Amino acid sequence: MIADKMKDLMANSSAIRAMFEEGKKMAEQYGAENVYDFSLGNPNVAPPEAVKEAIVEIAQTMDPIQLHGYMNNAGFESVRAAIAASLNKRFGTAFSENNILMTVGAAGGLNVILKTLVNPGDEVITFAPYFGEYANYVNNVNGVLVEAMTDRVTFQPDLDVLAKVITPRTRALIINNPNNPTGVVYPEETIEKLAALLEEKQRQLGTDIYLIADEPYRELVYDGAEVPYLTKYYKNTIVGYSYSKSLSLPGQRIGYLVIPDEAADGELIQQAASVANRVLGFVNAPSLQQLVVARCLGESTDVSYYDRNRKLLYKTLTDLGFSCIKPEGAFYLFVKSPVADEKEFCAHAKKYHLLLVPGSSFGGPGYVRLAYCVAYETIQRSIPAFEQLAKDYFGK
Amino acid sequence: MIADKMKDLMANSSAIRAMFEEGKKMAEQYGAENVYDFSLGNPNVAPPEAVKEAIVEIAQTMDPIQLHGYMNNAGFESVRAAIAASLNKRFGTAFSENNILMTVGAAGGLNVILKTLVNPGDEVITFAPYFGEYANYVNNVNGVLVEAMTDRVTFQPDLDVLAKVITPRTRALIINNPNNPTGVVYPEETIEKLAALLEEKQRQLGTDIYLIADEPYRELVYDGAEVPYLTKYYKNTIVGYSYSKSLSLPGQRIGYLVIPDEAADGELIQQAASVANRVLGFVNAPSLQQLVVARCLGESTDVSYYDRNRKLLYKTLTDLGFSCIKPEGAFYLFVKSPVADEKEFCAHAKKYHLLLVPGSSFGGPGYVRLAYCVAYETIQRSIPAFEQLAKDYFGK
Repeated sequence: MIADKMKDLMANSSAIRAMFEEGKKMAEQYGAENVYDFSLGNPNVAPPEAVKEAIVEIAQTMDPIQLHGYMNNAGFESVRAAIAASLNKRFGTAFSENNILMTVGAAGGLNVILKTLVNPGDEVITFAPYFGEYANYVNNVNGVLVEAMTDRVTFQPDLDVLAKVITPRTRALIINNPNNPTGVVYPEETIEKLAALLEEKQRQLGTDIYLIADEPYRELVYDGAEVPYLTKYYKNTIVGYSYSKSLSLPGQRIGYLVIPDEAADGELIQQAASVANRVLGFVNAPSLQQLVVARCLGESTDVSYYDRNRKLLYKTLTDLGFSCIKPEGAFYLFVKSPVADEKEFCAHAKKYHLLLVPGSSFGGPGYVRLAYCVAYETIQRSIPAFEQLAKDYFGK
Repeated sequence: MIADKMKDLMANSSAIRAMFEEGKKMAEQYGAENVYDFSLGNPNVAPPEAVKEAIVEIAQTMDPIQLHGYMNNAGFESVRAAIAASLNKRFGTAFSENNILMTVGAAGGLNVILKTLVNPGDEVITFAPYFGEYANYVNNVNGVLVEAMTDRVTFQPDLDVLAKVITPRTRALIINNPNNPTGVVYPEETIEKLAALLEEKQRQLGTDIYLIADEPYRELVYDGAEVPYLTKYYKNTIVGYSYSKSLSLPGQRIGYLVIPDEAADGELIQQAASVANRVLGFVNAPSLQQLVVARCLGESTDVSYYDRNRKLLYKTLTDLGFSCIKPEGAFYLFVKSPVADEKEFCAHAKKYHLLLVPGSSFGGPGYVRLAYCVAYETIQRSIPAFEQLAKDYFGK
């Protein structure tokens, strides 16, 4: 017998992961080149060469006791200091190592900060559609996830909706910019209005409402879009970051939290988050990966590769009659399902070996998500399949 | 404001980690050679050379998309299959990859299996003294940790005490063999009696009581002691393992769970644990570390180094008049405090730059733990300090 919460999770288990596993099976059955797997956000672009060089050099030259041993639960001081300096240079912030806590990916970081801040029954708001795991992370600490529907055309935050769902129990708002699953980027103007609303609500309610900025896609932007650094707009901001997408290292589990001194109880949160990192079982972010990212701070995966994919897939789908907002960030297309039940649309697409994820997995029914972090050739090969699919629904 | 649970944790924060941080400061102040830090179980013996070679070779030759990308939440199939084969060869078991789930250290694995099995209010028993984090892991899922005091002389399980604390709410018993903090090894005879008792209780109560075998110290044994492989004695056994001690890789966060098919609901638990690994924010064990350990299955850190330390420190302390059971495993000495309040003893020892951990951190008041995973020379240099300490208490 498994725990009750696990029974619920199994019943509603990840459609993304299910598609990923199915895609692997289909690849074995039909040949990988005949399967068009747009399901999992698994980066197709290799990490920059500097990553390999860093791994080898660190392994060969560093004292193995230092390299492989325990360190402070928050991570190596030198790594945290280097990341702080890098952020300060890029964004004009004033962080020190004390503001940086190394985590097991962004997923680890989110669990750490939620454990640190959320009491049972506390509300955590997210704009919808959203990365479905937020619901599970909030549930881990017996919080309540509250969805704030975004604008139905632009997928930008609807601040009227947000204002209505903030209550005295609101502990935090999770914001994901650039956005998974929609690919939109919230511009500075939106952020300023959002910050003003949160400040107003904090005053009205006499509470602290933390803005948790989950931003693994920060560097994946196109068409000159800019992603504001949220600590500069709102004091009670905690940033969660990961190198999974910007350095193509999702399997390596490495990211960090930024906890500014200016946040309410900032120093206490820093200490508590370090303890949470330990008691949740992470203990510390993997030591080798910490040291590698510290050496690769100026590096980036080839974002232009994703841009080329974005352009081709967006043009292909919209030319065929599918409806989709043009994304400026991340590597997802959020496409309107031609039928109300998008799961039916996904099942039909699977017959053409097209693997898409139903939007209801993201609190966005009626849509499907396509991850274009695939080989460019995969997109090219998928075009006839999309043409067939379009024909079935739009009859041309 | 931080969460209530975090306030409690901060108030009772880890004495081990506090000593570790203090030790680093004292080393800066007095010079590392003048500080005798027996606090943190941070292995002093380097990993075997094969680890470095594996890291370098994998980084240089493996397809980077495979190496750094996401894989199944349970870990690479090939890694899991290799570990299963290795266990089968060593212990005569019959595991496949399905029975192995790669985790972020043993700490990650314990959190995964507790999330998988424990409902709020369920009881999880541990023999005391015990690794204090068990209480925090059980609290993460709102379980209740129940301590079963071991024999006061041998620190072996007292099955009469255990029989008394098993109730209809008992979900699991955590067993740590070889044992932190006492260093004792539970022999086969004890295990057989333990298994018989658990079987009897399961029948009486009509429940499944899972035996969670936390065994990061399995390979650290001395004087020919043998550590039974518990799945062979009791069906409802889950094994948690880590390479932190056997390969000296604690900072790298790599271990695994063994979930046998024979356990009640074994296959369901395997699937649920994989989901738990994902939703708790681990997502998967770090990919590079998975591949490294799979290549180093026949390797071991130099256990004879710890044995030499064990002999010197045990002889030193017992010759001076301190009372301590002779440990057969792990790298800890559990020494009786000469005064009832062992925290006072620790504070006094610190004046001689001896860093020891109070036994109350382990549910073992009146004792202190010394970790002898330090340089042999550190133990040698510490002898005059222990002589002073002994003089203060035993007056010679």
